[in-house]
Amino acid sequence: MTAAVDELAVDGDRLLRRLDDLAAVGSTGDGGVSRLALTDDDRAGRDLVVEWMEDLDLEVSVDRIGNIVGSRSGLTDGPPVMTGSHVDTVATGGRYDGNLGVLAGLEVVETLVEAGVTTQRPLAVGVFTDEEGSRFSPDMLGSLVYVGGMTLAEGLDARSADGVRLGDELQRIGYAGVVPVPRTAPAAFVELHIEQGPVLETEGFTIGAVTGVQGISWQRVLLTGQANHAGTTPMHLRRDAGYVAAAIATGVRRIALERGGGTVATVGSLGLDPDLVNVVARRAELTIDLRHPDERELRLVEAAVAELVAEVAATEGVEVAIERLARFEPVVFDETIVDLVAGVAADRDLPVRRMVSGAGHDAQMLARVCPTGMIFVPSHDGISHNPVEHTDPDDLVAGADVLLHTLLILTDTRGPGRVADGR
Amino acid sequence: MTAAVDELAVDGDRLLRRLDDLAAVGSTGDGGVSRLALTDDDRAGRDLVVEWMEDLDLEVSVDRIGNIVGSRSGLTDGPPVMTGSHVDTVATGGRYDGNLGVLAGLEVVETLVEAGVTTQRPLAVGVFTDEEGSRFSPDMLGSLVYVGGMTLAEGLDARSADGVRLGDELQRIGYAGVVPVPRTAPAAFVELHIEQGPVLETEGFTIGAVTGVQGISWQRVLLTGQANHAGTTPMHLRRDAGYVAAAIATGVRRIALERGGGTVATVGSLGLDPDLVNVVARRAELTIDLRHPDERELRLVEAAVAELVAEVAATEGVEVAIERLARFEPVVFDETIVDLVAGVAADRDLPVRRMVSGAGHDAQMLARVCPTGMIFVPSHDGISHNPVEHTDPDDLVAGADVLLHTLLILTDTRGPGRVADGR
Repeated sequence: MTAAVDELAVDGDRLLRRLDDLAAVGSTGDGGVSRLALTDDDRAGRDLVVEWMEDLDLEVSVDRIGNIVGSRSGLTDGPPVMTGSHVDTVATGGRYDGNLGVLAGLEVVETLVEAGVTTQRPLAVGVFTDEEGSRFSPDMLGSLVYVGGMTLAEGLDARSADGVRLGDELQRIGYAGVVPVPRTAPAAFVELHIEQGPVLETEGFTIGAVTGVQGISWQRVLLTGQANHAGTTPMHLRRDAGYVAAAIATGVRRIALERGGGTVATVGSLGLDPDLVNVVARRAELTIDLRHPDERELRLVEAAVAELVAEVAATEGVEVAIERLARFEPVVFDETIVDLVAGVAADRDLPVRRMVSGAGHDAQMLARVCPTGMIFVPSHDGISHNPVEHTDPDDLVAGADVLLHTLLILTDTRGPGRVADGR
Repeated sequence: MTAAVDELAVDGDRLLRRLDDLAAVGSTGDGGVSRLALTDDDRAGRDLVVEWMEDLDLEVSVDRIGNIVGSRSGLTDGPPVMTGSHVDTVATGGRYDGNLGVLAGLEVVETLVEAGVTTQRPLAVGVFTDEEGSRFSPDMLGSLVYVGGMTLAEGLDARSADGVRLGDELQRIGYAGVVPVPRTAPAAFVELHIEQGPVLETEGFTIGAVTGVQGISWQRVLLTGQANHAGTTPMHLRRDAGYVAAAIATGVRRIALERGGGTVATVGSLGLDPDLVNVVARRAELTIDLRHPDERELRLVEAAVAELVAEVAATEGVEVAIERLARFEPVVFDETIVDLVAGVAADRDLPVRRMVSGAGHDAQMLARVCPTGMIFVPSHDGISHNPVEHTDPDDLVAGADVLLHTLLILTDTRGPGRVADGR
């Protein structure tokens, strides 16, 4: 059987069809999808996935925070090797973010069912609640509760911007399950996801073997200067909060370029008050998003930015208040699994690159409790969280094939074979 | 009589009392005033001023755009020497902007009435419609129509943000007068106004002899880049409209400082889209306000800014669209009147400085049709268009005294006397 298992391949058309069918739920009519967590549209998406799981004879269990796991027995007992992702989307989302990881998991299962293959260890496909965090903060809430990083009570008490409680919405849509959290740790976890960035496409790679997730530092900076008439106030008598905000934004870019080595820094939100053409801004507010795969480097970047902010504001006589919005240390994935993904891809003659994820994913939560890795496929123009989000069908299928063989090896169903040479 | 006329002084308490009484109309309760043009509050303010004019036996005439002129006969006929300003305010206005110029004019008249002095030439006090432009665009609309710079039809058809027509509001509040516009040019025009900037206070002067009004260039810059994930998009693959906006804002400041010589440059409005912490901005919009007293210099500054915008945008791969919002050439006031104001102030031992106005004023419209000048008094902290707008009572009274004696000389009622030595 080993030779046959080595040559298994997913049914690409079937995978693409499922992606189409799921994208029809909450379709925005422009190629995009809107299924905010725990809305009626999210329920409809979940229902469809559960229906497919049941068609594949998976044992479906829902936990108290609404995570769905479809399990398939192996030849031996023990915790399953798990794959999966999420099916909630941002308000103007694309059709692949999250959905690909879940549906590729189902496609792997159906490929095994069709080939009559039972894995050695059990296999499971997970669908995690509220990964996007667009409706309930924080993002990756479901997987965080899954691994015990947040209590169930805290998770259920999360509130949307309009005051709705997550636990009430879970009840309402019928996904308040009975399985306790934190749940039993899987034997291993591998998530297939679109890159959501331009690196693979730009550099001509099909597969990313993800080595970890960047550390993230989010700050909001509030600047208070003095409103003044733009015509009557000489430059040297100004305390221009808007100028300080702009100088911080350009300085943050300069710091990112100077430090290099994977540093990314973004000022994505910036607003002035009173925001009038002929009034020097009294107040300005901006956000600073800093990311780096290495904690030590991230701290150096944060320090350089802090120095910049203090210096520019002091020179202009503007007061500064800084609010920390989020801070996550970098996550490093399991080296064996990273090597395995890279080897499986090379074995299939797919151009593969090791890379760090710039975005957060459920896998980073699972990494707290089990050996974890991720597989990336290219995002056209690096665009995601957008109706035009696109990945070439060949790349989607290639990613699912890499997932299939990675899972076959992790479940001890096939040996590494040529894979070791391909690293 | 000449000696007595030389020693006339306004009644400061009476001036301050009228300022208090007018500030009570449309009071915002925090020291500020809200009398947007042609609202019920503006009508109430106008009614009070007209009542005072009638108490002083001025002949009140209202023209078709609602400008009010209170005239006092002189010993000779001919066009009057005029002073005045406006009594409309911005939504959160102060109590001196505009009001001071009108009420100091009335105080000059009452001082003459009390002293039994009839000027040689006629004297008039004007109250111009919609100077602020906060409700109906453009600002200085009434004085612009007064001098024939805009047709009556255009002026009456101006619409507020909520679609109300200026002409209808004039009718409604009872200030659609019958005097045709453009009106007869005065013999001369002098306006007393608060500086609305910090220069006089900072440098220790009481009186500004205003030499002209800066030229103004307003542009809106629209930048279109590409939205991208802040975590997954390497710095060198970004087309960040927000970064370009910030680089323009800091560059505009640099250009203003490099060119110096009275250049002021302001980015007072700046916004990003989608304006999210973790998304590289797809679009940015900012305004650029450039001012300079010399047209040639203003053009050089505009050219430097245009080069900056094009270069920064091209480097980042961001598209630029520029919309011109306003462009006024600098206005130069009559040299004789500027000298006269400076001389009168010096004669009264008031520290006086020649200066350019950074803000627009009705006087700049009158300058199109007659010899014109302005008198500035200090604004505490340079703050205006704000409830905390403040000028020391002594400075208000000093300004009114300078106005009195400037008008006495312009109406040929007193000779320049010591004034010539004081220049």
